[in-house]
Amino acid sequence: MSSTNVRAKVDVGQRETSSLIAASKVKGTNVYNRQNESLGSIYDVMLDKRSGHVTYAVMSFGGFLGIGEKYHPLPWHLLTYNEERGGYIVDLDKHRLEGAPSYAVSQTPDWSTGAYGSSIDKYYGDQPTLR
Amino acid sequence: MSSTNVRAKVDVGQRETSSLIAASKVKGTNVYNRQNESLGSIYDVMLDKRSGHVTYAVMSFGGFLGIGEKYHPLPWHLLTYNEERGGYIVDLDKHRLEGAPSYAVSQTPDWSTGAYGSSIDKYYGDQPTLR
Repeated sequence: MSSTNVRAKVDVGQRETSSLIAASKVKGTNVYNRQNESLGSIYDVMLDKRSGHVTYAVMSFGGFLGIGEKYHPLPWHLLTYNEERGGYIVDLDKHRLEGAPSYAVSQTPDWSTGAYGSSIDKYYGDQPTLR
Repeated sequence: MSSTNVRAKVDVGQRETSSLIAASKVKGTNVYNRQNESLGSIYDVMLDKRSGHVTYAVMSFGGFLGIGEKYHPLPWHLLTYNEERGGYIVDLDKHRLEGAPSYAVSQTPDWSTGAYGSSIDKYYGDQPTLR
C-alpha cells in the first residue's frame, strides 16, 4: 500500500479519486477482523469482465513461504477499507473463516460454471454478490 | 486468458459468473481497435477501494521487452470484452491513442489528487468514469 493513498487529503473533490488503487497493489494488502486479528492478505481479486465490478477478494491465509497456504475467496462487499490500518476489515472471526470455502495453491477452482461463486455467496449469507 | 473462460457455455444462469476473471489474469490480455489492429495489452487495472469498481485499465503500448514501453490509462467503460478474440475491443484509432495521456515506466502518475484521472476522462470525452 503506498503512503500516497493512505495519507491523501480527502476533500469533496478528491473523495472519489483518492481511493483509487492499482489491482497489482491490492495484492498483499492485509485483512483484519473487528477484533484486530490479522486474518491474512489479499492474493488476488476476481473481476466481472463486463461490468468491471470486483466480485470476490481472494485472501491468502496461513502457511509459511507459500507452503500450506490456503486461499479463501470472500465476497468483496464484506471488505471495508480502513485508512488507519492501511488494510481491509471484515466482520468474521477466525473460526468462521476456517470453515469457509477455500482451496490450496494447486487447486484453482473452476469459476466458469457459477457453482463455485454461489457456494461462497451461500456460506457468507445468501445475499448475492453485487456485480 | 484461460480457455475455460472463453469457452464457458453461457446460459441464463451462468451469464454473470462465466465472465469472472482474476485481476492477475487480466494482465497481459490484448487490446484491439475496431479495425482489428492490436493496440497493446493490459498492464494493470485501477480499482476504487470503496465501491469495488474498476475505473481505469492501464494499457501497455509499444516498446520491446519493456524498453520504451508506455502506459496508457483508459476509462474502463471504453473496453468491451470479446470472447472470440479473447481480448478487449476499444473504439480508438492508433493516432488518437498516440495523443492520449500516457506515462513511461519510471513515471508512475499521482492518482491521489484526482487531477490525473480527470485528465484521462477529459481526453476520452467528458463523461465521468463510473465508480
